[in-house]
Amino acid sequence: MAQENLSVVLHSQGDLRLENRPVPEPGPNEVLLQMHSVGICGSDVHYWQHGRIGDFVLKKPMVLGHEAAGRVLKVGSAVKHLKSGDRVAIEPGVPREMDEFFKNGRYNLSPSIFFCATPPDDGNLCRYYTHNANFCYKLPDHVTFEEGALIEPLSVGIHACRRAGVNLGSTVFICGAGPIGLVCLVVAKAMGASQVVITDLSAERLKVARELGADFQLTVKRTDGAQQLAKRVENMLGAQPQVTIECTGVESSIQTAIYGTRSGGVVVLVGLGAEMATVPLINAAVREVDIRGVFRYCNTWPMAIAMLASGQVNVRPLVTHRFPLEQAVAAFETTRQGLGIKVMLKCDKDDQNP
Amino acid sequence: MAQENLSVVLHSQGDLRLENRPVPEPGPNEVLLQMHSVGICGSDVHYWQHGRIGDFVLKKPMVLGHEAAGRVLKVGSAVKHLKSGDRVAIEPGVPREMDEFFKNGRYNLSPSIFFCATPPDDGNLCRYYTHNANFCYKLPDHVTFEEGALIEPLSVGIHACRRAGVNLGSTVFICGAGPIGLVCLVVAKAMGASQVVITDLSAERLKVARELGADFQLTVKRTDGAQQLAKRVENMLGAQPQVTIECTGVESSIQTAIYGTRSGGVVVLVGLGAEMATVPLINAAVREVDIRGVFRYCNTWPMAIAMLASGQVNVRPLVTHRFPLEQAVAAFETTRQGLGIKVMLKCDKDDQNP
Amino acid sequence: MAQENLSVVLHSQGDLRLENRPVPEPGPNEVLLQMHSVGICGSDVHYWQHGRIGDFVLKKPMVLGHEAAGRVLKVGSAVKHLKSGDRVAIEPGVPREMDEFFKNGRYNLSPSIFFCATPPDDGNLCRYYTHNANFCYKLPDHVTFEEGALIEPLSVGIHACRRAGVNLGSTVFICGAGPIGLVCLVVAKAMGASQVVITDLSAERLKVARELGADFQLTVKRTDGAQQLAKRVENMLGAQPQVTIECTGVESSIQTAIYGTRSGGVVVLVGLGAEMATVPLINAAVREVDIRGVFRYCNTWPMAIAMLASGQVNVRPLVTHRFPLEQAVAAFETTRQGLGIKVMLKCDKDDQNP
Amino acid sequence: MAQENLSVVLHSQGDLRLENRPVPEPGPNEVLLQMHSVGICGSDVHYWQHGRIGDFVLKKPMVLGHEAAGRVLKVGSAVKHLKSGDRVAIEPGVPREMDEFFKNGRYNLSPSIFFCATPPDDGNLCRYYTHNANFCYKLPDHVTFEEGALIEPLSVGIHACRRAGVNLGSTVFICGAGPIGLVCLVVAKAMGASQVVITDLSAERLKVARELGADFQLTVKRTDGAQQLAKRVENMLGAQPQVTIECTGVESSIQTAIYGTRSGGVVVLVGLGAEMATVPLINAAVREVDIRGVFRYCNTWPMAIAMLASGQVNVRPLVTHRFPLEQAVAAFETTRQGLGIKVMLKCDKDDQNP
Repeated sequence: MAQENLSVVLHSQGDLRLENRPVPEPGPNEVLLQMHSVGICGSDVHYWQHGRIGDFVLKKPMVLGHEAAGRVLKVGSAVKHLKSGDRVAIEPGVPREMDEFFKNGRYNLSPSIFFCATPPDDGNLCRYYTHNANFCYKLPDHVTFEEGALIEPLSVGIHACRRAGVNLGSTVFICGAGPIGLVCLVVAKAMGASQVVITDLSAERLKVARELGADFQLTVKRTDGAQQLAKRVENMLGAQPQVTIECTGVESSIQTAIYGTRSGGVVVLVGLGAEMATVPLINAAVREVDIRGVFRYCNTWPMAIAMLASGQVNVRPLVTHRFPLEQAVAAFETTRQGLGIKVMLKCDKDDQNP
Repeated sequence: MAQENLSVVLHSQGDLRLENRPVPEPGPNEVLLQMHSVGICGSDVHYWQHGRIGDFVLKKPMVLGHEAAGRVLKVGSAVKHLKSGDRVAIEPGVPREMDEFFKNGRYNLSPSIFFCATPPDDGNLCRYYTHNANFCYKLPDHVTFEEGALIEPLSVGIHACRRAGVNLGSTVFICGAGPIGLVCLVVAKAMGASQVVITDLSAERLKVARELGADFQLTVKRTDGAQQLAKRVENMLGAQPQVTIECTGVESSIQTAIYGTRSGGVVVLVGLGAEMATVPLINAAVREVDIRGVFRYCNTWPMAIAMLASGQVNVRPLVTHRFPLEQAVAAFETTRQGLGIKVMLKCDKDDQNP
Repeated sequence: MAQENLSVVLHSQGDLRLENRPVPEPGPNEVLLQMHSVGICGSDVHYWQHGRIGDFVLKKPMVLGHEAAGRVLKVGSAVKHLKSGDRVAIEPGVPREMDEFFKNGRYNLSPSIFFCATPPDDGNLCRYYTHNANFCYKLPDHVTFEEGALIEPLSVGIHACRRAGVNLGSTVFICGAGPIGLVCLVVAKAMGASQVVITDLSAERLKVARELGADFQLTVKRTDGAQQLAKRVENMLGAQPQVTIECTGVESSIQTAIYGTRSGGVVVLVGLGAEMATVPLINAAVREVDIRGVFRYCNTWPMAIAMLASGQVNVRPLVTHRFPLEQAVAAFETTRQGLGIKVMLKCDKDDQNP
Repeated sequence: MAQENLSVVLHSQGDLRLENRPVPEPGPNEVLLQMHSVGICGSDVHYWQHGRIGDFVLKKPMVLGHEAAGRVLKVGSAVKHLKSGDRVAIEPGVPREMDEFFKNGRYNLSPSIFFCATPPDDGNLCRYYTHNANFCYKLPDHVTFEEGALIEPLSVGIHACRRAGVNLGSTVFICGAGPIGLVCLVVAKAMGASQVVITDLSAERLKVARELGADFQLTVKRTDGAQQLAKRVENMLGAQPQVTIECTGVESSIQTAIYGTRSGGVVVLVGLGAEMATVPLINAAVREVDIRGVFRYCNTWPMAIAMLASGQVNVRPLVTHRFPLEQAVAAFETTRQGLGIKVMLKCDKDDQNP
């Protein structure tokens, strides 16, 4: 067993350090993993810059990282479905209690859930990491580690599209073409959406969206009126979209989402903005446009692996930058500046392949 | 056939008149009805007082009334399922087009729907009235005309509870104990809700709620904080309610509804308030508390009749006042002053029984 | 701690013994329970008489009993939500693996689930018993131990009615008025069913059904034709039932269930009969009558407790016989002879109350 | 207006004639169509060969054909959404009554529905045909008439996959690679199925299935055991499929479907066989494998057009033969012999293009 366990540790707001931590020992239901690829998420950068997200406040040093894949080095005594050498994708949320949410299949809502890199729980941006084996999923040979790591953001898209009820022939409006908007786009098309229109402030991001399959792109300005924008989307599609997935969290964009969705349709809120939002709730109510939020995801890894294995979803173009773990600070800086789409950290010194 | 057809006609804001109109002739798919009992709805009074509700503006004289039951006098040439003498409850909304909403079973969302006493469509507060026979439902012998008329408000409760997913053992929080809050209460209990807590500004209304089966009543003040109120509801139930049905439309009450609902639960918006509302949308989103509106109802009459016929729902106590049709103005004034719960107008000179 | 642990042990087909077993020690996630009331289920008797049910074969001595409630004597080191003295109802199925079924909220389908008194897992017809604390549910003070024990059969009814989609105003046809048919009846009415017709060979059982709320009872004969019987049910209700719950497992009764259910409705198979059944599958298919089975239940205890606590469901009349644990063999004989409805064994020498 | 209206009329079992009928006049809600392309369905051939399908018996001469697209020549007085010259696809089922099924969005189950080429209702294998305008759907310019005609079989696949709950990452087993099996395949993939295995007696048909996207093909023999076949499918996929779509109607294949579907999954019955079938109902019931039939379809044309317009579904390869209307008998003979996949009749003398 290696002696060093280089880890990316956030000590306090703005204080990101690379430091060695002990290599952990897996418990009976755990596996010890040699980390291979870990993507940097906006939330990692947010903790670095602000020391908190909402009620989650960093109070002690925490390892960052939760979009991850690695190789099993050692299995706990009770683990049956994995063995040393298996390549796995890691679901970062592990319910700690068998509460009503877990028993009902919505374990993401369990208040006591463990979640990588959400204070106070450590993440997996390190060389060696232990995780509950039930939340490690074996990757088929032809699915890469990076694809495995990308299952985490892909899961946000799957959960959002599933909550939205995207179906064969659905018309979908996605607000925001950042990484999450893009995975929603990819998933919506894979679920059979016939037309997807996507908006963003940045024409460059929309270009990527087009390459990933968006049927219509619409460059918006901060000053656009919500109802006017809703009307432009309707005109593009020939009818209001049945589903709107709001990925910006901006108040005016939520307003556009509500005005723009067809009666009987669904607005899914993925982007998070201010605590209070002023929205045309009556407009939604009397047209029975449901407003549904998403909190992370549940039960997405198996279907994501199935989609990646079958080749029906291609997330490889999302990775635009790679850094060795030792250069984590530069990698974080790249994400902070909004360069590219997804920055991947390579944790295995001996294998920096995708 | 009678010669006079005394009708309650709203000519313009504040100008309510009793006048004679011609007795109409049923079209091929219609029935001519001798109206028996018609309840006064808050919306009838609102049109009288304000001449409009939202985008629906009174532009020409309109007969009021849409909570109604009567007796078939004559059937159109194509009508098969009804015959002269049948006692029927009237569903006031009749889709005019076979659009996507109608074909999908959500005809209440059809933009071109006919709806009694919504401008410019005439209602049925009169002696003789024709209606699409497909939206007239035969009443069993032991269900009274007034119960038939009450199916309309009951339908709002059914649609709300159905959209809310009320189920066996559900815990339900109802904001507002007016007529709509009360029918939601009655329906929620009939659907198997184990605990219902209901709030109102008026202790008197809450007393009625208790008699109708509410497990907990909570008198609130306009100055109560939304989060504090949510906490009090949680304390009463021992846990947050799974379902909240908001019947006031007041912004702070919608806030309470969101804060107060259990993760993974549903808030249904029944009450209508200001166009824009400032609400803790993030709080709802990250706990996956769905926000769903209701627009009237669809497919409720048959199940309402089944419930009334079986005696599992008792709406008779809701009728607190009765007036002959000739005294319609006094009846409207009674409703305007908020006296009692439901005021019923008796349209048949020869039969003023319930 | 008491020294003896009198237990009802099935050694082999026909060989039922009362014997002392060691008092077990709870593991970290377990509680030690002093058993109070345990109902005898048809399956307990079936194992006694036949030594097997389908693929489940008794290969070594097994304690019987799985309809149970008791008092917590000792809690494991990791248990937080229970404490010594708590009165609890026991859910007999405890998933052993976090497999896809458990994660999706359908843990009853998990192939490796532990289940009381299903070979080779011991049941709880004894004085002292340990169980996973997450599957023990605290009873409110005014819910009796026997009501707690009856949650198990009640859960079969809840799961069946939930799978059937029983809803406000549903019309329901229940085939068979044994204990399971009766709990389905009670639950269907609590969920808002407007009309329930129930059939049985025994007029006596139907009398109990009437007392429990059945709207129509129909005494059937083994020789009745399936289509004729279906027609008689339709005539009673005035229309075909939307939901049929088949609790006999008899082939001709399944045929009746299919023929008798309204287009677009649901047949739920609760009773288990021969491995192969000859049924009018085309008739079901072209009328989109769904055929759904139930395997035990999941996520029913909390809602059952809520219903019992609120008084909306009354299962107390189901208990017709009581025996002290020492007379278990006589109790089993009573059930075998089909006397009464539910036989309850009283396991606590010092408290034989309901 | 043209004077002749060449029509393919079935006079009695085996007696198929080409004859001239009067050109009909559209009613107020109808359109007169110049037929362009009409596919031959197995049911058309079945009526020709047997004079009946189940309870539907030919009692007087009937025009065949129900997979159709044409051009609007004339619109009825009440028609607003179509105009002369519009190219439309025809949904052959038109509900005649606003019954509970229609109001609930399941109009395919309405017992009194009009349906092209189901006795006694005439189909549209002719030059000129009138149809309810609400069930004619405008085709985008780049969707061909033949694609429009293929929406009918495609709709069977959509309805089947929708009833099956096919979703992102679903694994699907399709029994039978005839035209219906193939459209189910195409639709399942478009809905996001990750793996589809399809079986047939004919290796040639399976070759087409492979070209249309099947992940696995399995040639079966009539003598294969149901459980053995189920096991082979499981081995191919690495796990049992979540969804099975049975398109043969053969009893042993239905048995395979049940044995082969994962616990908690769904078997959809599309193929129709003998009235009674002997199946392992217990196996389905205790594993909660739902059995659901399909009767035609409802609410599929808009989504099918959306899919065709977006190019996400390609049905063009399904057309293997084309005949001018005058050669209808040869065309029927081709279908009867099972040659190719779909035979298309070209009804417009001046435009025989796809």
